[in-house]
This record gives sequence, structure tokens and C-alpha cells, in this order.
Amino acid sequence: MLIIGERINYTRAHIQEAIKARNSGFLVKEARRQIDAGAGYIDVNCAMSLGDEVQDIDWVVSVIQSEIGDVSICIDSPNYLAIKRALEAYRAKGRLFINSITGEGSRIDLIVPLAVKYNTALIALTMGDGGMPNSAEERFAIAKDILAKVSNKGFKAENLYFDPLIRPIATEPEQAREFLRSIPMIKSLGARTICGLSNISYGLPDRKVINSTFLAMAIQSGLDGAILDPTEKQIISSISAAQALICEDEYCAEYIKAFREGRLV
Amino acid sequence: MLIIGERINYTRAHIQEAIKARNSGFLVKEARRQIDAGAGYIDVNCAMSLGDEVQDIDWVVSVIQSEIGDVSICIDSPNYLAIKRALEAYRAKGRLFINSITGEGSRIDLIVPLAVKYNTALIALTMGDGGMPNSAEERFAIAKDILAKVSNKGFKAENLYFDPLIRPIATEPEQAREFLRSIPMIKSLGARTICGLSNISYGLPDRKVINSTFLAMAIQSGLDGAILDPTEKQIISSISAAQALICEDEYCAEYIKAFREGRLV
Repeated sequence: MLIIGERINYTRAHIQEAIKARNSGFLVKEARRQIDAGAGYIDVNCAMSLGDEVQDIDWVVSVIQSEIGDVSICIDSPNYLAIKRALEAYRAKGRLFINSITGEGSRIDLIVPLAVKYNTALIALTMGDGGMPNSAEERFAIAKDILAKVSNKGFKAENLYFDPLIRPIATEPEQAREFLRSIPMIKSLGARTICGLSNISYGLPDRKVINSTFLAMAIQSGLDGAILDPTEKQIISSISAAQALICEDEYCAEYIKAFREGRLV
Repeated sequence: MLIIGERINYTRAHIQEAIKARNSGFLVKEARRQIDAGAGYIDVNCAMSLGDEVQDIDWVVSVIQSEIGDVSICIDSPNYLAIKRALEAYRAKGRLFINSITGEGSRIDLIVPLAVKYNTALIALTMGDGGMPNSAEERFAIAKDILAKVSNKGFKAENLYFDPLIRPIATEPEQAREFLRSIPMIKSLGARTICGLSNISYGLPDRKVINSTFLAMAIQSGLDGAILDPTEKQIISSISAAQALICEDEYCAEYIKAFREGRLV
């Protein structure tokens, strides 16, 4: 299970302050904290920057990698120029994700060649020209279309992570089921699946309960990765247990290690 | 989701003391506590009684129902005479479960006519003459065989709850996956599924994490009920969230109620 830590996002007040003030210590601490909690990748999102997103993301990637030499980063931006600059700034020995493309042709034309050139993994939201999909079948059809387009550009299916788009159960309860149903369908294409977790519980109390329960169900359905806050113990507990329960943790060694390190609830 | 509270079991020291001392107040309190926490049924198990199981289970059923007039009870015994006596003692306005039969013919011959006569639901462990099943397919084959036998005696599939037998992941990690795979297979027969939950985490630390995560995965796979300790908040949190996530809780009303009543972690 691939865990991408979501905390370095400009929409969070402390992160915004740190970026504006060029407080590198704070950002490095946030990155380390997420890695210690179990994140394999650090998402970096400066999209809502009040300054210049391109300069901001360049600075954030540079300071994190200068302190953590093997950090793996997920470059999260709607802005082609910001993605390009972050890729150029990256010198660490980890791996890269680009987050994200959709079925939109012009964006695929811009982003996929970058992903091929820099050998990154790529997140594709299952959104086509018709807007947000409702059924699992619609998600699958969009994924198939996107896979064909990116394969044409030399990008490998195994590095493509589809996000079948979670919607809040408080307002669209049947969408959780459709999301879960879509996972094995999409994986049958040879691609992988990922999601931004927290939307599922929007509008409900005690969100960690919904988030961690849904994650267990999604892992059971075959989910390969998630973008989430790894410092939430209930989330990490759910992932550790679910990995053991689907036979992806020999002798429950990782689960027992997480317990011993005090990372479980 | 049907919740059977497991706490009234002679193997628990406080219960054993209360039964020996004929301390009805303690037992009624244990029953009420489980109902308040969300249990629909109270499991009553006196099988390890050092005295007379038949007299003990008669007394336990009698005192609980005298205080809780609509209590539903799960009569849990390997002993035909104890089950028969408990059925005779039951006068409350709830429903009854008998726990359990296996594929063993002589036991089916004794117990199923009682279940028909008293209109109870019935738990059947997927154990045949060949001992414990390993694969989902073996569980399904045993369930099919048991269903045929009990149907012959006039018992309805919809009242039959198969327990596909959880084994500890610490020692048999692939058994969790086989258990989960068997649920939709067994349900395709028109029968229901149930499990005794806590075995899954035997031998591991922080058992509530494994138990609650596995329960979410099992509910996602279609599990209809579980025998568990409803006073564990993490378990009830997992059930409440999972029910909402599989669209079995309109407007998340039950989830929000459980939160307001302080029943979630």
C-alpha cells in the first residue's frame, strides 16, 4: 500500500505561513513527520498560492530534498509550468508522482511527455468530457479511454494510478459502493488505483472513523494507494491491519512493528 | 447488520462467579449494557459450567427475560439438552438463535426440529466430516450440503446463518482472504452469513484494531451478522461507519445517532 502524505498543502494555514515566510525548518519537519508515520511519498501542493506557484513549488521541493536526500515526492498541481519546474528542481534519490491528469486531451498532451521524460508515476482522475462519473462502469470506461491515450505516448500502465473519485457519503451515499466496485474493474486493465481519502467523510462527525473504515474496505477491494494524513493514528492502524488481513504482511511483522513503535491507536 | 453480544459466557471469570452465586443483578446488567451498546441479541453460553449446564442456562435465560421483556437471545451450546431447556424457558417477546450446528448428521437430526418447532434462526458452522475447511470453495461445498440437509427438515434458508469459520491471521494468514471470498459464494445460496469475530486477532497485539478492520472488510464482502463484544467502541464505530458506506444507513442517520450518544471512538 502506497501512502502519500497530504499535509504539505498551501490551503493549510500553517503551511501557507511557512511558505510565505520561506520557513524551511517547518516544512522539512512536516515532511519528516509524515515519513516517520509511514508515508512513502510527500505530496507538495502550492496551487492556491497567493504568490507565484511556480516559484513556491520550486522552493518547497528544493528545501525538502536538501534535508531528506531520498525523499519521494508527489507533485500536485493543475499548472503545467509548476509541474515542469518541480520536476526540474528535483534532485533527490526517491521517486516522483505527478498528480494529476484527467481525460482532457490537451492536458494529457502536455503532462504525459513530462511523466515519460522524468520517469514518474502518474495519477489520472477518472473524469472525462462528460464530467463526473456516477457508476463503476462509467469510471471504468473513462479509465480505459485515458489508458489508451497515455499508452499511445509511451507511458506504461503499471505506472498509471487511477483515482476513481470519492464523493461524500453524506450527500451521495451510493457513490462509495460505485467507487469500490470500480477498483477491480480498473485493475483488470493492468493499471493501479489510488484515492484522495478524506472527501468520503465530508459533512459528517468523527471523520477519522469513516475515513479509516472506508480505507479498510477499499484495500479489501484492491486499492493500491491513498493520499491521506499519515499522522492520524486511526488511519495508519487501519492500513496496517488491512495489509495483514489481505496477506500482504508476512507473519504480521509490519503490523507488530507499527504497534511496538506506538503508531497504532 | 445483526449484532450478537458475546459477554455472557461462562468462560469469563465475572460471569462464572455471577452464575455460581445466582447473582441475577449482575447478569441483567451485562445484558442491558450490551443492548445499550447496540446488540440485537444476547448470546448465552454456559457450556463450560462446572455445575449443571442445563440448570444454569435455564436460570440465566429466565432471569434475563424476567427483567428485559423483549430480549432476543442466542442459545449457545454444544449440548442438546441445554438448548432444549433454554428454548422451553424462553417466554420473552424477542427472537431466538440457536448456536450452532455443523455438517454432522446426528446433530442436525436433533437440533433442526427444535429450531423449526420454536421458529428460531440457526447458526451453522461450515465444518463437515472432513474437519476444518481451507479454501472458500470447501466452505461453500459444506454450506451447500448443510443447507440441503436442513431444507429437507423444513427449515428455511433465510433463517440459516453460516459461519465460515475465522482462523487467526497470526498463524494462518491466507484464511482471512478465504473467509472473505466465501461470503458472497454462500449468500448466493439464499442463506446468510455470520461469524464469531475475535478469533481473527488471536496472538496479536492491539486486537481491537485487527477485529474492527476485519469487520469492515467482512461487511463490505456481505457479512450479515457477528458475535462480538459490543461494548468495544472501536467495533461499534467500524460497524456504524461500514453500514453507512455500503448504503445501509439512510442519510447516515444511525451513524450520526451513534456519534451523538457517545458510542463511537
